[in-house]
Amino acid sequence: MKISSRLERLTALEGVENSLILRPEDVRWLTGFTGGTSFVLVNRSALSAVLFVDGRYYERALSEIETAGTNIDVRLLKSGESMSSAIASVAHSKEVGVDLDHITASRFQALTSQLSVVPEPTALNDLRRVKDEWEIELMARAAKIADDALALVLADGLVGRTEKQVRNRIDSTMRENGADDVSFATIVATGPNGARPHHEPSETQIESGHGVVIDFGAEVDGYRSDMTRTIQIGNWSSEYRHMYDTVREAQHAGVNAVREGVAGSHVDGVVRAVFDREGLEHEYVHGTGHGIGLYIHEEPILSPRCETVLQSNEVVTVEPGLYRGGVGGVRIEDQVVVTGTGCRILTLSPKELSCPRSPQTI
Amino acid sequence: MKISSRLERLTALEGVENSLILRPEDVRWLTGFTGGTSFVLVNRSALSAVLFVDGRYYERALSEIETAGTNIDVRLLKSGESMSSAIASVAHSKEVGVDLDHITASRFQALTSQLSVVPEPTALNDLRRVKDEWEIELMARAAKIADDALALVLADGLVGRTEKQVRNRIDSTMRENGADDVSFATIVATGPNGARPHHEPSETQIESGHGVVIDFGAEVDGYRSDMTRTIQIGNWSSEYRHMYDTVREAQHAGVNAVREGVAGSHVDGVVRAVFDREGLEHEYVHGTGHGIGLYIHEEPILSPRCETVLQSNEVVTVEPGLYRGGVGGVRIEDQVVVTGTGCRILTLSPKELSCPRSPQTI
Repeated sequence: MKISSRLERLTALEGVENSLILRPEDVRWLTGFTGGTSFVLVNRSALSAVLFVDGRYYERALSEIETAGTNIDVRLLKSGESMSSAIASVAHSKEVGVDLDHITASRFQALTSQLSVVPEPTALNDLRRVKDEWEIELMARAAKIADDALALVLADGLVGRTEKQVRNRIDSTMRENGADDVSFATIVATGPNGARPHHEPSETQIESGHGVVIDFGAEVDGYRSDMTRTIQIGNWSSEYRHMYDTVREAQHAGVNAVREGVAGSHVDGVVRAVFDREGLEHEYVHGTGHGIGLYIHEEPILSPRCETVLQSNEVVTVEPGLYRGGVGGVRIEDQVVVTGTGCRILTLSPKELSCPRSPQTI
Repeated sequence: MKISSRLERLTALEGVENSLILRPEDVRWLTGFTGGTSFVLVNRSALSAVLFVDGRYYERALSEIETAGTNIDVRLLKSGESMSSAIASVAHSKEVGVDLDHITASRFQALTSQLSVVPEPTALNDLRRVKDEWEIELMARAAKIADDALALVLADGLVGRTEKQVRNRIDSTMRENGADDVSFATIVATGPNGARPHHEPSETQIESGHGVVIDFGAEVDGYRSDMTRTIQIGNWSSEYRHMYDTVREAQHAGVNAVREGVAGSHVDGVVRAVFDREGLEHEYVHGTGHGIGLYIHEEPILSPRCETVLQSNEVVTVEPGLYRGGVGGVRIEDQVVVTGTGCRILTLSPKELSCPRSPQTI
């Protein structure tokens, strides 16, 4: 499957005669254009689309559209030309579908003053779900960059370093090893800080006895990886060890439950059953996973309410965790590709990781 | 001036009885709360405000509000509670002012179904313009982190390195030296790549004869720095040297024109006059500068259309440039604090920088 076939897949779906696409990742998916400040108008019956860019991006757009082999016109926005005027110039009197989650109220009002605007939830969230081989390959490359960065940071030792220092080291290592960027803001949470799922790295030093939750990923050509490990520092309390073992078991069960044809809620339920058995379901305060690709969070969302069925070549995370105030947190996350018989795990780091050594130089 | 006085300044302005504040930086400015997923409802006649947060941020919000000393209530959003229901529960039947640039069309529609919503451009863009001493101090610290990172990268040598390698080194150095993050995506553009003002760092190697445009900044406690230097590698052509000297003169003139009471368009005009004199005005494709603070781009914008008058303790950039296809670009940028007699320059790196040495190790 190529980028050039995507416009055809979109126009084959029922919908409004013209559809406006505003999010940069959606524009990239459909056209191959990677720059900013752009939007696309798709015309359903003509099977055509126009990519609007400003002067900064015109040459790049022409070149990337040609590379992608897509049958899409590039139009330069004139200086001072409004979005609604530009669209009106190609859409004439026809209706234009817009996803109201992707547009500001002010822009929406400007459009409605010149065009017949119809609210239309985007079809792209569904179309982007199943990945091409090369999309999976990019995510595998991103996952390896993350695996390698974690191994390097662990080899250097963690005790005595601050969460921020570990974050900086992971991020710079990934960039040096070919990541275009980090996939999202890296989380490093040591000891009691781990009880907050979205803890921001602080000046807290890593100590013996801590569990260190590290949740991070790399971005390669727009595609993202996402992984979490909980690192053992010195000896753990039996209470924390039990939390870890429970999450480890739940995560293993979750990965084993992923398979084409299974509902997202099933994977979530398998994970949740392990926590229920231990009476810890109240400490599992988030969903089990999410699709991933150009966006860090895509469809499908693996939660109790997810009735959608997994398809081959969807890429999702499986990331159960437990969070206990004053004690800490445990989360383990893999990124996996759904297959007909199960899944292929892109995250290759070992699950059980410890780091007894002290740092050499900081 | 303290955070605790800001609510009073806002409610002293005329406006709708209740105002909704949605952008995280605006919420931070008004309340001191630094987390995500929150919004504020200000009640004008009661001189009061309510900060709404979800469960992840409740304790942090209480603690940060107390530290800031602001008279603001914190309310926990119930699981599944919509923004409009939450607002309706405290705003009753009164009108709610919303800036239509800061809300999605879908959220706006949800609000209008439960509340009497009035479009109201935010007053915060104006209120945030003049900075407190501690805000300026944070930006001075961010500027120094950027200055120091540039010095380190130049001491290591640039020839033979790629733009991406230089970007990675600058970014990781700033983070290691106390930046919470980079201020925006660092630009490194060598040789002909410099002709694009927003070039993204690539695998292009830096060669003798190149000018290297480096545009970057650090973020400290939410406040941002922004600077650009054009580094001389080996010997420049006389054509490129003339571009450089012209930008250098224009930038010097621009900084000298900054003073309390002067219109933004005046600073822009002084810069543009230098380019006009050389017949190069068509190669100056952007404005002269912008306010900076919690946002990388704030009011005032120093452009030909900027009629607003500079005030003491506003912080702005002065960043003229020239861009010539096939040849390259030059940009020089300082961040300055407006004073009664001129300005104080926060960016302390020398303007003339060269880098003849080869890299040692990469």
